[in-house]
Amino acid sequence: MNEAAPVPRSGARFAVEYHLSGTETEARAKAEALCLDQTVELPDELVPAGMIREQILGRLESFRRLNADRYEATISFPTKLLTGDCAQLLNITFGIASLKPGIRVGRLHLPDPLVQSWPGSRFGREGLRGLVNIHHRPLVCGVLKPLGLSFSDLADLAYQLVLGGLDLVKDDQGLSDHPFCPFEERVTRCAEAVAKANRVTGRRCLYVPHVSGPWEAMHRRCLFAKKAGAGGVLICPGLTGFDSLHDTAQDEAIALPV
Amino acid sequence: MNEAAPVPRSGARFAVEYHLSGTETEARAKAEALCLDQTVELPDELVPAGMIREQILGRLESFRRLNADRYEATISFPTKLLTGDCAQLLNITFGIASLKPGIRVGRLHLPDPLVQSWPGSRFGREGLRGLVNIHHRPLVCGVLKPLGLSFSDLADLAYQLVLGGLDLVKDDQGLSDHPFCPFEERVTRCAEAVAKANRVTGRRCLYVPHVSGPWEAMHRRCLFAKKAGAGGVLICPGLTGFDSLHDTAQDEAIALPV
Repeated sequence: MNEAAPVPRSGARFAVEYHLSGTETEARAKAEALCLDQTVELPDELVPAGMIREQILGRLESFRRLNADRYEATISFPTKLLTGDCAQLLNITFGIASLKPGIRVGRLHLPDPLVQSWPGSRFGREGLRGLVNIHHRPLVCGVLKPLGLSFSDLADLAYQLVLGGLDLVKDDQGLSDHPFCPFEERVTRCAEAVAKANRVTGRRCLYVPHVSGPWEAMHRRCLFAKKAGAGGVLICPGLTGFDSLHDTAQDEAIALPV
Repeated sequence: MNEAAPVPRSGARFAVEYHLSGTETEARAKAEALCLDQTVELPDELVPAGMIREQILGRLESFRRLNADRYEATISFPTKLLTGDCAQLLNITFGIASLKPGIRVGRLHLPDPLVQSWPGSRFGREGLRGLVNIHHRPLVCGVLKPLGLSFSDLADLAYQLVLGGLDLVKDDQGLSDHPFCPFEERVTRCAEAVAKANRVTGRRCLYVPHVSGPWEAMHRRCLFAKKAGAGGVLICPGLTGFDSLHDTAQDEAIALPV
């Protein structure tokens, strides 16, 4: 994001690099269609003159050959089309393009003011290093699995993994809130097991439970996990919507690495 | 969903038809990997004996050739892995498979008790026909666009579309909560315009605003839309997470077609 960004021709714009398959003629036609599809979704002859044609439409900023049957088109869009949520950014970037073949999003170029107005990770790489107090080697993460183990088996496994030297222990993404391994029992027992093992090792391994689900359940799970002593939460944003990830990262009541 | 479902070998199971590309040997290897990947995500030799091996793993129920380089594998999973939310169903069905090439989900077979425990649309096709009082011809829907019009221009367009005979008028999915066309003003004005035109035609066209966004914004937009007289709400579940769609459909305070 944001390296080597092309200079947009006017106003505040962001840009998307699309990789387009086909002949040059086909790829150019796809690029022209993207300028319309990702904004007004009208045939060119129906686009009203004035503000909409001049400012709302996508603009083809550059077009180049990548290989025999693949071209790259960089298309800019006005940042005023963004509303500060992930849904709208994804809608403009992928929206109609995602329904058509031979189009891939290669890269997003967001201008600095936009990036600054959109806080990302609360902790980031260095913050996470600080939490586990490991600064000079890669962090090592283990996974609590398989799905099907009871919460006490998972807690035993967590204990052993921490003794084995891990920095992070996360739930498998298959662990949810199953009757054979309920969320609250699992998180309570695994957080206790990790804390107990940390007292043995004298280190600070973090336990990261998986919380994906409907928004209200996920929010409740995050607060429960925080209270139980979890060191972070794991979300699958493709399943929950990326705004859930963003909202969880920003939530002062949670304030955990996500 | 649920037609021609294969009979599972034991217990309550649901099944997914995967289309697998490659030679027969490659497709069989993919099918066997799916049984592990979509559940325990462990190599076969590490799967514990007993309940996990017997009940948690996916089971290859059938395997057949579709064409020269495409095979269909029907794999069943125990319904006890489902937790009643869309995230978990999507996780088992698509999860790891979505990270690997040459795998496509063709069809889901959900057993009747599962379908019955999981209410879908509140209105359905016949309910929607009842709302617009059109029972014997296809319904016709128009779209308020392009993105870039003001709320008063969109309301004028809505009025004209209803006079033109439409049954449903929906927002374009690009309309969000932009400063140049704020959500509340748009929905208020468009709902009023549709109601006014309905008084002219004597019919019952529904206005369906687009509400996608972060969960709390979306929920607030739905309640606002309901109060303003909207006849339904439009959600892009790929952007918001499918559980948002399900939660909105079930919400008694909203109770609109979604």
